Amino acid sequence: VSAADAESDFPLAPFRTIAIVGLGLIGGSLALAIRERWRDVTIVGVDRGDVLADAVARQIITRGAPSAAALATAADIDLVVLAAPVLQNIACLRDLASASRPLLVTDVGSTKQGIVTAARDLGSRITFIGGHPIAGAAHAGLAHARADLFRHRPWIFTPSSKGDEAALQQLRTFVSALGAEPAVLTADEHDRVMAYVSHLPQLVSSALMRSVGNAVGAPGLALSGPGLADTTRLASSPASIWTDILQSNAAHVREALDALMADLQAIRDQLDAPPAATAWLDEAARWRAHLRNGTRID
Amino acid sequence: VSAADAESDFPLAPFRTIAIVGLGLIGGSLALAIRERWRDVTIVGVDRGDVLADAVARQIITRGAPSAAALATAADIDLVVLAAPVLQNIACLRDLASASRPLLVTDVGSTKQGIVTAARDLGSRITFIGGHPIAGAAHAGLAHARADLFRHRPWIFTPSSKGDEAALQQLRTFVSALGAEPAVLTADEHDRVMAYVSHLPQLVSSALMRSVGNAVGAPGLALSGPGLADTTRLASSPASIWTDILQSNAAHVREALDALMADLQAIRDQLDAPPAATAWLDEAARWRAHLRNGTRID
Repeated sequence: VSAADAESDFPLAPFRTIAIVGLGLIGGSLALAIRERWRDVTIVGVDRGDVLADAVARQIITRGAPSAAALATAADIDLVVLAAPVLQNIACLRDLASASRPLLVTDVGSTKQGIVTAARDLGSRITFIGGHPIAGAAHAGLAHARADLFRHRPWIFTPSSKGDEAALQQLRTFVSALGAEPAVLTADEHDRVMAYVSHLPQLVSSALMRSVGNAVGAPGLALSGPGLADTTRLASSPASIWTDILQSNAAHVREALDALMADLQAIRDQLDAPPAATAWLDEAARWRAHLRNGTRID
Repeated sequence: VSAADAESDFPLAPFRTIAIVGLGLIGGSLALAIRERWRDVTIVGVDRGDVLADAVARQIITRGAPSAAALATAADIDLVVLAAPVLQNIACLRDLASASRPLLVTDVGSTKQGIVTAARDLGSRITFIGGHPIAGAAHAGLAHARADLFRHRPWIFTPSSKGDEAALQQLRTFVSALGAEPAVLTADEHDRVMAYVSHLPQLVSSALMRSVGNAVGAPGLALSGPGLADTTRLASSPASIWTDILQSNAAHVREALDALMADLQAIRDQLDAPPAATAWLDEAARWRAHLRNGTRID
């Protein structure tokens, strides 16, 4: 077989024992995807006791561990994936700093600058490369985890030093084998792009739902059509995930909110001016066509 | 059979000959719904020649007429439904004012105050009752028309004088027979509610798509997930429909935009304050649950 064939088949798992901290939608889907791809990889989960018991019973993980700190002293871990909310991931990363041997750590959090900065202060035994799979589903939690969640979706890595090349290549191989499409950005580039393509849509969706609900109440909502439902779908997202994201990316999110409010102010001033309103709406439709043609999500 | 059974069966068409001005998604779907419900109703269409030829060939309408003005002199029309863009509907309504005999006219436009005001200046031969079916689809035009577009959807009427009771009852019976759920509001109430539940989502969706596209470009859009796609779906809507709506409802839309911008400014000031951000996000999630439970669109 050629080198290209061997790479596309990934016959050998790049890691033999993988720990996943946080078995929610993303962590749980990662476990399922690994299990589907390589039957013999050992998967160690860290989460609440009841979640671990459920995950072991359903054969999603091999065994549980009591905490991230406990992973630091485990003899067999090749990779730790932090899949808790953003600020908890940073706390777990610090717990791993006492590792008794070299450890490769990545995360799947929605913002990267905070955790990449925290990783700089750790000892040389930890190699940390930030990661972010761009994947999600309408419902959170292990119950909604799916082995194919990452298929054909981007998985961004944000390496922070040149010395991480070998580890980065290992992680790229790993997520490619799970069906994802690896990409590399700096942590700051990542956080700015996500402020626009992910965090701004969340805030817009919630603000729209709040404004409409508070102005017209349930009787007005009963007169709405599918357009409001589509545009406010994200407003159901749990606040517990979003407060960490907003806090850890506040500067970029503020920039994105300001750009949006400037665009809203522009159309507010042109409601009575059809040529200007047409140009404004047409530019939006052109970008929407770009979005549709460049992604697999419509 | 009981009176209730007779009403739910609508064995007799309330109108024998119905003219529909504008055979787009709504006008075309109305023709299909009438045709499905009562085979023997005559449907007269007004649109461009090629659209009429297509609609006759596909047996969606019985015959074409060259203009709204031509309907004013037709001997057999019982009901005229104006289904062109909002400002064209007002022009067509004025063309009907020279009717040689009493004529019942309604419309399906997205704003009501303008056309209801215009109707006051017409002669006593025209009975006008504004209407608005809350129905839509991802794609516009006769090619996407569907007989079931109005089923289980609200159809709002905005009668302007007490003397229209009999005509209003006839229209309610008519749209109920097509599967819609008639409701009655004043034109001003209708326009304010629609500014929030329909016009604001359109502007928010377009503004979000513009802001994101202009900030991160096509490479950034390629890193987006389904959340951005959902929230910007409306941004594909044709500007030609929306400029009329925005112009004819500018005051209410401005009020709605101001409410939204105040909500966005509130979260902008609280990105670093998790308890306040949680309360803000939770209120949105509560309204979204109301929307989901009170409508059939999720």
